[in-house]
Amino acid sequence: MKTHTEYLWFETKTRKELVRITPQLDEILKRSGVKDGMLLVSAMHITAGIIVNDDESGLHRDIMEWLEKVAPVDPNYAHHRTGEDNGDAHLKRITVHHQALIPVTDGRLDLGPWEQCFYAEFDGRRRKRVVVKVMGV
Amino acid sequence: MKTHTEYLWFETKTRKELVRITPQLDEILKRSGVKDGMLLVSAMHITAGIIVNDDESGLHRDIMEWLEKVAPVDPNYAHHRTGEDNGDAHLKRITVHHQALIPVTDGRLDLGPWEQCFYAEFDGRRRKRVVVKVMGV
Amino acid sequence: MKTHTEYLWFETKTRKELVRITPQLDEILKRSGVKDGMLLVSAMHITAGIIVNDDESGLHRDIMEWLEKVAPVDPNYAHHRTGEDNGDAHLKRITVHHQALIPVTDGRLDLGPWEQCFYAEFDGRRRKRVVVKVMGV
Repeated sequence: MKTHTEYLWFETKTRKELVRITPQLDEILKRSGVKDGMLLVSAMHITAGIIVNDDESGLHRDIMEWLEKVAPVDPNYAHHRTGEDNGDAHLKRITVHHQALIPVTDGRLDLGPWEQCFYAEFDGRRRKRVVVKVMGV
Repeated sequence: MKTHTEYLWFETKTRKELVRITPQLDEILKRSGVKDGMLLVSAMHITAGIIVNDDESGLHRDIMEWLEKVAPVDPNYAHHRTGEDNGDAHLKRITVHHQALIPVTDGRLDLGPWEQCFYAEFDGRRRKRVVVKVMGV
Repeated sequence: MKTHTEYLWFETKTRKELVRITPQLDEILKRSGVKDGMLLVSAMHITAGIIVNDDESGLHRDIMEWLEKVAPVDPNYAHHRTGEDNGDAHLKRITVHHQALIPVTDGRLDLGPWEQCFYAEFDGRRRKRVVVKVMGV
């Protein structure tokens, strides 16, 4: 069995942003040499998540506006007493989940026809990391 | 180490539906020959998800009504400019998550006493696919 | 390839509670002997979940208050016709997701600097179980 681990770094220009990372995952998978198994992609910072969905700009706007309703910016979060102002970003990460596991079949990411993997940044403009671990044969 | 991959197809009669798939997963696990490891079940279409919860019809109604509040049908999603009308289904998939990883122990799905696995369709009445990948010894 | 499985039991004093379990996961990982792979932690009872986020008490209060808004206590859930009164707890589990997969690298849980793993109890004061499965080399 093989394992292979890499880290992706992000520093988005805006505070909230969806970044398509399927191409980077494809390359990591190639370097891993794994033909059959699973690829885990997990946001290591607690104000970012991972979404597997459509690569359509209108939908991305919908997702971000919807998250603003579900887990809104609010100055009154108890977390802000620590000096932070990103309480909403923690809740948004929990809503979308912070990771996804992509099956690997015949040496390829076994995604559906419209499935693309996105890094979901909810408190950007600083360097943040994602771990990618491939395991299989 | 063994890997085993199968695909389940669904074409639900209604647009929104929960379909219990634990029996199909049990059969796939048997065919895989894996005794200890993990079974990944992941909805490949971006308007469906996977839920692991109770097999109780009242709860299922609650889940669907709750999702309607959290991620409502709305004609004004930006995604609908592409001609689609299923923006809510994308958001519902994100809410419930699109996949689950079931541990396999002693040749069985290592689920809790009331845990059952459901395919959660949010935009049905057409053929859609789920990937099941088993990995272990 | 190695696999290693243990179960954690919880009986929280309050009905809703976040319990940090990273130390227990560290110990299980050590006992597994796995140096590179993945550790799955999954709540086996359908009114509890797993959260990977910051260990900050203000944030924990925010998470619990936020979940009360997203998936509120409500006497009118259809599920309650079975005699239960925990419909909200099922929906809270779905919101936060019931499991997380932690990468293992160099014999350690490969978590971000502030990532801590929590058992999220939404209907406690009775014995409930979490499965932890490690797989790797």
